[in-house]
Amino acid sequence: MTMNKFTFDPLIIVNFKTYSEATGKRAVDLAKKIAEIGNKTGVKVGVAPQFCDLIQVVTQVSVPVFAQHVDALPAGAFTGHISIESVKATGATGSLLNHSERTIKLSDIQKAIIRCRESGLLTVVCAAEVESAAAVSVLEPDMVAIEPPELIGTGRAVSKERPDIIANSVKSIRRVNPKIKILCGAGITTGDDVYTALKLGAEGFLIASGVAKAPDPGRVMSDFCAAANRFTETSG
Amino acid sequence: MTMNKFTFDPLIIVNFKTYSEATGKRAVDLAKKIAEIGNKTGVKVGVAPQFCDLIQVVTQVSVPVFAQHVDALPAGAFTGHISIESVKATGATGSLLNHSERTIKLSDIQKAIIRCRESGLLTVVCAAEVESAAAVSVLEPDMVAIEPPELIGTGRAVSKERPDIIANSVKSIRRVNPKIKILCGAGITTGDDVYTALKLGAEGFLIASGVAKAPDPGRVMSDFCAAANRFTETSG
Amino acid sequence: MTMNKFTFDPLIIVNFKTYSEATGKRAVDLAKKIAEIGNKTGVKVGVAPQFCDLIQVVTQVSVPVFAQHVDALPAGAFTGHISIESVKATGATGSLLNHSERTIKLSDIQKAIIRCRESGLLTVVCAAEVESAAAVSVLEPDMVAIEPPELIGTGRAVSKERPDIIANSVKSIRRVNPKIKILCGAGITTGDDVYTALKLGAEGFLIASGVAKAPDPGRVMSDFCAAANRFTETSG
Amino acid sequence: MTMNKFTFDPLIIVNFKTYSEATGKRAVDLAKKIAEIGNKTGVKVGVAPQFCDLIQVVTQVSVPVFAQHVDALPAGAFTGHISIESVKATGATGSLLNHSERTIKLSDIQKAIIRCRESGLLTVVCAAEVESAAAVSVLEPDMVAIEPPELIGTGRAVSKERPDIIANSVKSIRRVNPKIKILCGAGITTGDDVYTALKLGAEGFLIASGVAKAPDPGRVMSDFCAAANRFTETSG
Repeated sequence: MTMNKFTFDPLIIVNFKTYSEATGKRAVDLAKKIAEIGNKTGVKVGVAPQFCDLIQVVTQVSVPVFAQHVDALPAGAFTGHISIESVKATGATGSLLNHSERTIKLSDIQKAIIRCRESGLLTVVCAAEVESAAAVSVLEPDMVAIEPPELIGTGRAVSKERPDIIANSVKSIRRVNPKIKILCGAGITTGDDVYTALKLGAEGFLIASGVAKAPDPGRVMSDFCAAANRFTETSG
Repeated sequence: MTMNKFTFDPLIIVNFKTYSEATGKRAVDLAKKIAEIGNKTGVKVGVAPQFCDLIQVVTQVSVPVFAQHVDALPAGAFTGHISIESVKATGATGSLLNHSERTIKLSDIQKAIIRCRESGLLTVVCAAEVESAAAVSVLEPDMVAIEPPELIGTGRAVSKERPDIIANSVKSIRRVNPKIKILCGAGITTGDDVYTALKLGAEGFLIASGVAKAPDPGRVMSDFCAAANRFTETSG
Repeated sequence: MTMNKFTFDPLIIVNFKTYSEATGKRAVDLAKKIAEIGNKTGVKVGVAPQFCDLIQVVTQVSVPVFAQHVDALPAGAFTGHISIESVKATGATGSLLNHSERTIKLSDIQKAIIRCRESGLLTVVCAAEVESAAAVSVLEPDMVAIEPPELIGTGRAVSKERPDIIANSVKSIRRVNPKIKILCGAGITTGDDVYTALKLGAEGFLIASGVAKAPDPGRVMSDFCAAANRFTETSG
Repeated sequence: MTMNKFTFDPLIIVNFKTYSEATGKRAVDLAKKIAEIGNKTGVKVGVAPQFCDLIQVVTQVSVPVFAQHVDALPAGAFTGHISIESVKATGATGSLLNHSERTIKLSDIQKAIIRCRESGLLTVVCAAEVESAAAVSVLEPDMVAIEPPELIGTGRAVSKERPDIIANSVKSIRRVNPKIKILCGAGITTGDDVYTALKLGAEGFLIASGVAKAPDPGRVMSDFCAAANRFTETSG
């Protein structure tokens, strides 16, 4: 399933990181559960499994699939790197870039965005705070995801703990790039966190442990999607 | 196909790098050709495709498959990294480490060797010259591959241009580790290169462009395997 | 000599890189020559010697001195890194950041700018092309330096070969940051190159081999400063 | 003061890291105190200040001075790097390499050792545990320093907490390199720690917070040197 045109409907991407719970066959199972809830609720969802699991998820699950990183390199003699061509060949939809656990050089963000665009891959560039989020937006990725690293994996939601970060990011980003889709993440664990973030101007989410390590990932995704729908209805 | 026990028969591993010719479906096709010639000639062969292609090659081709790199990390919050668990889950046999195009810190080589061993993955640690090859051999990987970077991809074979490197490496490595399997690479393009390297004490090969970018990779592999058999017979 | 307030007069910073011609005692000699010509012509000049040479240049030469890089780290247990505190303690005026030969992560650019500002050090963030130059300008460094790496050290001046890069950068940067000082570099070897770049909107220069490796660095600096003065007079 | 020939007398090197207490003028003061105690007790001592402080310490204090890191690069276009030539030009005696806070690639350790040797700089290569310590010893640096990172800065001495690491390292290192000088570090805070480590086969120490962040660094150094002399006498 491709996703070449984003409306500004909420989007929820689940980052599988290198969690055991989301590796190998379990990556496929988790992606299926997420896709199913997306279908049921009508909310746009996506998944970001590990490189080794990309093709299995793409071929077995009808959901947009993102790599967690790509190297800004052409095909060639680059042993051990993640070529954009190899990610594209799996049928993936796009890639995360510059996640706080895999930060990259500014010059590589810029090159990766350009090369992904040429290859038809969407880019979601992560940033840790307001200024960096605005800076990367200048490079015109498809989406930017703001994730304060100090809240990642804590269960303390960015929308509750640091609503200013979301509100200010939206303001700063819009000043330099009116078209980019703005995601947020870090500590999102309840439907209320989702609702609040959307009210603050976020247009989507990059979520990891909140779903992937939840005792019942399906229930959490259902909460998130219900909250997204609630927001869409009230704001529509 | 697993390869848990090496005899000291020659082994030929083909590194697919991030070559277009060996990405996606073409990775599977190339691996099939290599496996077929290994079967026909009775020479041990292996392949090292890109991460995104590992599972396809493992499930469709009966040949030992190596990742090109792994990160020495446990499962967890390591977005964008290559977890050993994800490589293991593909059914791969092992991994290259520290290739000259993906050199890593000494401490990471050490951790990766230990974690791969615990996970049942074989390790092939690459080194650029005699001293480094001996140094990494102290860390007890399963195999070491000596590849002078200045000859990689040149078609000027290390066994012809710098036979001293192979001979000295074998001597230096054996002094610190009598059990490790010693591979060599860089510039190997003919059966004669293979034969000479085996005479100098190499026990196998890590080869990339010589096969993967050859007009007829099957013919080149056949030459290499024939040379390996010629050596085994005369030295037997 | 400190330089806490920039007017938008042309500024010429000479980057000593790790050139033998500009190491140790020769760093001090070269800095003296550059300072002397700055004084004589009334053009603002600065130098960026190696870390080990900073204090010698600062104490012996009356010229603004820039480090070539700093690590965005607090004081503490960071063996082998370049602490901002250690650079500040030499009496230096500021630091280059993200030079194409020492690119850093976006998050580190952001932290380094903030910490340098807190320590009273000026920042000159380098960028390879238009988009990156605009992106880093969002982070509000004091200066940005655009240097197409493919022209660095070639003697083919960016102002002649790629005038569009300077003109477009000025436009893109001004859109996101009206106050930043815009330097350019790469291949500048004659007074004409300097004059053209200033006409295109550059407000200064980051120059390396053009001066440091010239047979007569003093003569080249004199040419550059004369061209800067010629521009200031005609545009005044 | 140069130190071109080591006897196997105990040697104590104090690593200043990027501690505020050991930056700028305070680096010189601390080095003077350490040198004074070395002179008084007749124990060989050395210091490893930050790059920006090297020349001040070398010219004002009569003690062997080590850089905390060098880049394995020739002179040239390497903005922001630590050239061996620039370190040598300060008059320094040598350099640490691969400290656990500044780990480097195996290939860079190897190149740096060779280039330092050519430049007349001594090398102290750090390693985190037994196997890595033995591996780097194959590369023939002048000294190796074993520092379990989990004990660094804890005040829990490696000689007390993990005596096996010192004893096993000495055994493993001697097997591959009988001439290298073996230092140890991490958590050393008392004369007893020093004495025990020497009995276990260590020939010197790389110490940081134990001295640099002590309320009375001179008193701690006196204790260490007294313990070293006590050992030398009883073992002589």
